[in-house]
Amino acid sequence: MHCCNTRIYYEDTDAGGIVYYANYLKFAERARTEYLRDYGLSNSQMLDDDGIGIVVRHVEMDLKSPARLDDMLDIQTVVINVKKASFIMEQTISINGLTLVTIIVKLACIQIDSGRPVAIPNALEEILNHDDPSHKPD
Amino acid sequence: MHCCNTRIYYEDTDAGGIVYYANYLKFAERARTEYLRDYGLSNSQMLDDDGIGIVVRHVEMDLKSPARLDDMLDIQTVVINVKKASFIMEQTISINGLTLVTIIVKLACIQIDSGRPVAIPNALEEILNHDDPSHKPD
Amino acid sequence: MHCCNTRIYYEDTDAGGIVYYANYLKFAERARTEYLRDYGLSNSQMLDDDGIGIVVRHVEMDLKSPARLDDMLDIQTVVINVKKASFIMEQTISINGLTLVTIIVKLACIQIDSGRPVAIPNALEEILNHDDPSHKPD
Amino acid sequence: MHCCNTRIYYEDTDAGGIVYYANYLKFAERARTEYLRDYGLSNSQMLDDDGIGIVVRHVEMDLKSPARLDDMLDIQTVVINVKKASFIMEQTISINGLTLVTIIVKLACIQIDSGRPVAIPNALEEILNHDDPSHKPD
Repeated sequence: MHCCNTRIYYEDTDAGGIVYYANYLKFAERARTEYLRDYGLSNSQMLDDDGIGIVVRHVEMDLKSPARLDDMLDIQTVVINVKKASFIMEQTISINGLTLVTIIVKLACIQIDSGRPVAIPNALEEILNHDDPSHKPD
Repeated sequence: MHCCNTRIYYEDTDAGGIVYYANYLKFAERARTEYLRDYGLSNSQMLDDDGIGIVVRHVEMDLKSPARLDDMLDIQTVVINVKKASFIMEQTISINGLTLVTIIVKLACIQIDSGRPVAIPNALEEILNHDDPSHKPD
Repeated sequence: MHCCNTRIYYEDTDAGGIVYYANYLKFAERARTEYLRDYGLSNSQMLDDDGIGIVVRHVEMDLKSPARLDDMLDIQTVVINVKKASFIMEQTISINGLTLVTIIVKLACIQIDSGRPVAIPNALEEILNHDDPSHKPD
Repeated sequence: MHCCNTRIYYEDTDAGGIVYYANYLKFAERARTEYLRDYGLSNSQMLDDDGIGIVVRHVEMDLKSPARLDDMLDIQTVVINVKKASFIMEQTISINGLTLVTIIVKLACIQIDSGRPVAIPNALEEILNHDDPSHKPD
């Protein structure tokens, strides 16, 4: 399980006084990026070296309670499932152990130029399998 | 069924050359706002007059194909279900009849000051019931 | 002088109840894009056909009065000056004739791949000179 | 001089492959917020306790070179001038000592409910004067 933090600034809030709902998806993507970076893999590396981007195919987001200005969010990210061309992560956004938002996201790799799906690159697959609970190494 | 349009600008795209995934939720919220405005109800009216805001409780978003710079998106919004304190809308984002993204969103009303759920105000309920397929007027 | 409109949604506001200051630069860029589109030129056309992007070199923004949720903004855009590789536009954001924000922006064209400055493409130069008050056609 | 860092994620970039220009103003606001937080003052505290918000009155931004995906930005913030109801900060965004963007921003305090300017609260004034080079303590 990977953990990281993100602070809430004015840019993240709206006139209702709480975090604008779409912004939780930004925080989730920051956390997924840091997850990969902690294993030595960066988005720009995949993009520049192989022309590959990770795209989101499906999102399920449950918003239980709102975050507010100046809150420091904890974001936990776990790999749920890894297939040949896609993988699923579950992410939990919380403050002091209280869950605010849960996000289940299905991701896939595409060739940026063509937009076509490609198999998950080896470097990424190794990272994901490392954490995939269903993965049993040979 | 309510329809509106939104244009893709540089602000909406990312370095992958496509629309950043969280931004579809912005477009969906614009469309829901215009839906209500077409019936004469505005967010600021609810906020200023009654201190009530519409918040998102749950989102399910399916991203089939990406939008790109300068695309003109069609967003269709329908009411699926209306309960005492929450309602569900289904939104389809498409270009020239090709569906790119579908979003099912559960919304609720809260008192902005306290954050507590409140019953859907009458003015909003009438609008939603007008379009709710399961609603049979007495 | 080119005019266009943009509506304020929840996404544009912050917890202070007003439009977040950086977002006026988004509205200004939408207006500049529509200015060019009205003359038949699009950002994606320049990007895809010639690998050229318009980038901002300098911004001076004066914020007199804030916009709020549901406001409909008028944005006026005029060309102030056109040089070989850069041009200056002045933009005024107002509501019902009341000026909220003025923006003076210096723009330049770059080759996207290299990031290097390039001369303004002919198609763009013709549009800009058409409105440049200092330009006297031969 | 106050220093802080911010990472560039996909959300910050655009289809030109670089950071969208308005987003530098977000980073600058994050840095100003952290500046105050380091002295023990938070935006939410001012907002909730006194109904006061810091708003931007004027921005001058010079963009010399663009930031890209995965870049780690350094943001330096200094107080330039403090008056009774407004203050000026200069902010420099750089990578490895190379300046990308400089921002000079004039800020003021307002009563959130009325939108009216108010004198800088004492707690904020003390922080700003501490760093104001022109300020000579009695």
